[in-house]
Amino acid sequence: MMTRVRSAVSSIIGGIMASGSSAQEIRPDPPLRFPYSRPDFLALSPDEVECSADHISRPILILKEMKLPWAAGYAEVINAGKSPLNEDQACCEVVELRRRPADPSSPSYTPTRRRSSLPSADLLESIDSSEVKELNFHYWALFDGHGGSGAAVFTAKFLHLHIEEQLQEVLEILQNPSLQPPTCLGEENPVHHLHPSARCSQRGLSRAASLRGAAGAPGPPNTVAPRFFMEKKIKQESLVVGAIENAFKEMDAHIARERMLYSVSGGCTALVVVYLLGKLYVANAGDSRALIIRGGEIIPMSSSFTPESERQRLQFLAHLQPSLLGNDFTHLEFPRRVTKKEVGKRMLHRDFTMNGWAYKTVQEEDLKFPLIFGEGKKVRWQLNVFLLHSSLDRDCLLSHRRVISQLMMSLNKLRVLYLVWYEHGADDVMILATDGLWDVLSNQEVAEAVSGFLGNCDPDDQHRYTMAAQDLVMKARGVLRDQGWRIAGDRLGSGDDISVFIIPLMHGNSQQPQPS
Amino acid sequence: MMTRVRSAVSSIIGGIMASGSSAQEIRPDPPLRFPYSRPDFLALSPDEVECSADHISRPILILKEMKLPWAAGYAEVINAGKSPLNEDQACCEVVELRRRPADPSSPSYTPTRRRSSLPSADLLESIDSSEVKELNFHYWALFDGHGGSGAAVFTAKFLHLHIEEQLQEVLEILQNPSLQPPTCLGEENPVHHLHPSARCSQRGLSRAASLRGAAGAPGPPNTVAPRFFMEKKIKQESLVVGAIENAFKEMDAHIARERMLYSVSGGCTALVVVYLLGKLYVANAGDSRALIIRGGEIIPMSSSFTPESERQRLQFLAHLQPSLLGNDFTHLEFPRRVTKKEVGKRMLHRDFTMNGWAYKTVQEEDLKFPLIFGEGKKVRWQLNVFLLHSSLDRDCLLSHRRVISQLMMSLNKLRVLYLVWYEHGADDVMILATDGLWDVLSNQEVAEAVSGFLGNCDPDDQHRYTMAAQDLVMKARGVLRDQGWRIAGDRLGSGDDISVFIIPLMHGNSQQPQPS
Repeated sequence: MMTRVRSAVSSIIGGIMASGSSAQEIRPDPPLRFPYSRPDFLALSPDEVECSADHISRPILILKEMKLPWAAGYAEVINAGKSPLNEDQACCEVVELRRRPADPSSPSYTPTRRRSSLPSADLLESIDSSEVKELNFHYWALFDGHGGSGAAVFTAKFLHLHIEEQLQEVLEILQNPSLQPPTCLGEENPVHHLHPSARCSQRGLSRAASLRGAAGAPGPPNTVAPRFFMEKKIKQESLVVGAIENAFKEMDAHIARERMLYSVSGGCTALVVVYLLGKLYVANAGDSRALIIRGGEIIPMSSSFTPESERQRLQFLAHLQPSLLGNDFTHLEFPRRVTKKEVGKRMLHRDFTMNGWAYKTVQEEDLKFPLIFGEGKKVRWQLNVFLLHSSLDRDCLLSHRRVISQLMMSLNKLRVLYLVWYEHGADDVMILATDGLWDVLSNQEVAEAVSGFLGNCDPDDQHRYTMAAQDLVMKARGVLRDQGWRIAGDRLGSGDDISVFIIPLMHGNSQQPQPS
Repeated sequence: MMTRVRSAVSSIIGGIMASGSSAQEIRPDPPLRFPYSRPDFLALSPDEVECSADHISRPILILKEMKLPWAAGYAEVINAGKSPLNEDQACCEVVELRRRPADPSSPSYTPTRRRSSLPSADLLESIDSSEVKELNFHYWALFDGHGGSGAAVFTAKFLHLHIEEQLQEVLEILQNPSLQPPTCLGEENPVHHLHPSARCSQRGLSRAASLRGAAGAPGPPNTVAPRFFMEKKIKQESLVVGAIENAFKEMDAHIARERMLYSVSGGCTALVVVYLLGKLYVANAGDSRALIIRGGEIIPMSSSFTPESERQRLQFLAHLQPSLLGNDFTHLEFPRRVTKKEVGKRMLHRDFTMNGWAYKTVQEEDLKFPLIFGEGKKVRWQLNVFLLHSSLDRDCLLSHRRVISQLMMSLNKLRVLYLVWYEHGADDVMILATDGLWDVLSNQEVAEAVSGFLGNCDPDDQHRYTMAAQDLVMKARGVLRDQGWRIAGDRLGSGDDISVFIIPLMHGNSQQPQPS
């Protein structure tokens, strides 16, 4: 497993710039943005952090005294030597959303103004004491770094704050669950589209009133283009999904800015669970995985994307804008690298329009680097390797980086689960884990292991989920034998970093649960 | 249903140019490429063709004497007035693949040279009598036209010939089912990658011999780039998939060329089933649908794509290359059209990276036409409407057309089913139908109707599948009442063209079945 090539789309957050930036060229040793650490909730001393990085004994770290929201369990282990540090990171928070007590009748009032400055470390202390606690969301997240731990550490510190900021923008709407999000905000809300008789009251309406009006009877929006008479009805949960999606983008931009001044190494995947108002939102960018076990049933809650799963989209991008890739890549895929002496011969290939294969006559340009190569877990997106190791002009890359990272963002598929629709028992859980677990254990094996373990625990034991997580990590890491790490069936154990959350779902049954 | 807006991605084949082309501007009345007709296998007289277009009585047409391969059934009905003619077309063929008796030991030999000229009507008569019958494939296809019947008629005449041409290229490989397709063809096949000891025999090898070598032991392909040591193993069926995919592209290009000289009106969807060597290949571009009913189980065999299902991909294209769309569109989606007085306000929107929604401040540029609008069956891709009705520079469109149509092509997802793995009974069938059927009947309703009908038929009756198809069309069209066409449950019947194939699968159980 040491030689396993990491999924390159895992560069989703910040990975594309990886270990170098134009800022770095000017200042060879920019300061570290944050030092390496393990998750705050593990409450490790510096000595313990050092011990946790022992690649020989690979100690499994678990929660000690500290309790996580919902009594969620957590365990982790470092890799067997593929990187000096554990590049996985984790975060768990209950985040309060606050509403500022401004005057809602003011024409210029908006619930939370978009902050012109972006969240920084200062944001942690910036909460206005005049704000009133209104609503909270629960948050569990795993980040799997590669090419350095910087991006994972940074993202673990800030992503939930970006989500908070995005949710603040729609807080007033979310606080009224029966309200359909109005299409357009503002004091001049076109209420004449809703109730023709109300046109005279168009000006000077308080925003709260216009919200009610818009929600009450959305109708034909305008008379200018009568063909567009349909108005989509947007659900409240779509606002939460949009907020999380935009938080991912803001996080990406945030890292890019920090890199102008600081060293933030590598990239990372992100698997994020947000619980808000009775619903679980699962967002996944990369190859971590979330799974629900409920009444013995396995419900996959995330779809991982890899260069292979997104091949056609990546090839299409490269085909359309070869300059994005410095004109050094071919968007065509061949079963293997083409050699010079094969020019003129007919070789199997496929482009972005194809799932099958066909022969084509090899041209000189087919000798360029392939954008995607490899198969299964070994597949990688060539671009990433290239950026890490090449001398390609970095300013040029910087300007193109946004398009590529936006494309990657668009692959992030959120799932929503209504927890309130089901009466969960103590053994109904959601499992989040980085690919170190899924590389060696199937969904079925994981479900059986967790269900079996929890079935033998006291349902009232608050540590049962952490013990189950520990058991799972142990089952995937295995024990050190003469032939390396071995798991059940004498299979090879995972040599990768492994991080696992086990979250009991029974706490999410109430509409607005309290953290346990 | 008369006002139903057709799915605009149904322009997959040729639809983007639709009713106008630059050639047409020079010659206002180019000759028709082919006259309107109904499928050949219906063997209708000109009078019968005319009668079939009666929008009032809407007669259901069925197969008369002629038998289709596998005794497949067929029925169709015209729309209730949405277009003057039935814009659906159908084709059913058994196509022979022939190998030319060239000298396989010749160094320059390739099984079938790529024809430099593309298939034309002449191709129908061009088969070289010296060719030997080797292999055949069965072919059933439905095409649902829009904006005219020309493209559907044309595609029904040629698509199977394009598939034939593509399959010819790999015929020699397909004829040896145990052969893994070699990565590279040609007399200088790099056999040293396979057996270092065989390097001396590299030159002058017959192609047949090099094929065997390549298949026998694919190994590290080259020594130049040792990182690329993996070689993908391509399955035989991937060659068939690639051949069908490329045939779609060739068909698209073929129509574009014909339009330089002839009138080929409109665009069309394509649902194609190819049976070759025990496997069914189902390709679908648009919103027709294929379904298998087997032992009472319903197996969807196609996924339709629509502007809505492909929203993010289309938006990404528009975002990346706005010039493709003449800079007149916004790639952002709003719940409805934005009005001028809303500039400066905050409005719900989403871009290609989002599945959720968020508010943004409306800018002047957001007043442009939205690329995609509407919801459900009413959703359409604005581009298509625009091209049909605008005065946008057509030469500019012509140059961009290929990129857009390539993007559409990449959405064509093929499914493969191994028929030999299952012992099919007389009531196990595949149903192909245009959206006229699926608009009013669910998969479940269709399966129940067909299973119920066949269960009451003599299993040996050769007409049972046509009668079942007729029954299905009747159930979807309904009967004319005071309030229009009505079906079971007093629901509105389909006012669209409806075409249905019902194909019994028992004939596909043998490895190389004979047409019945």
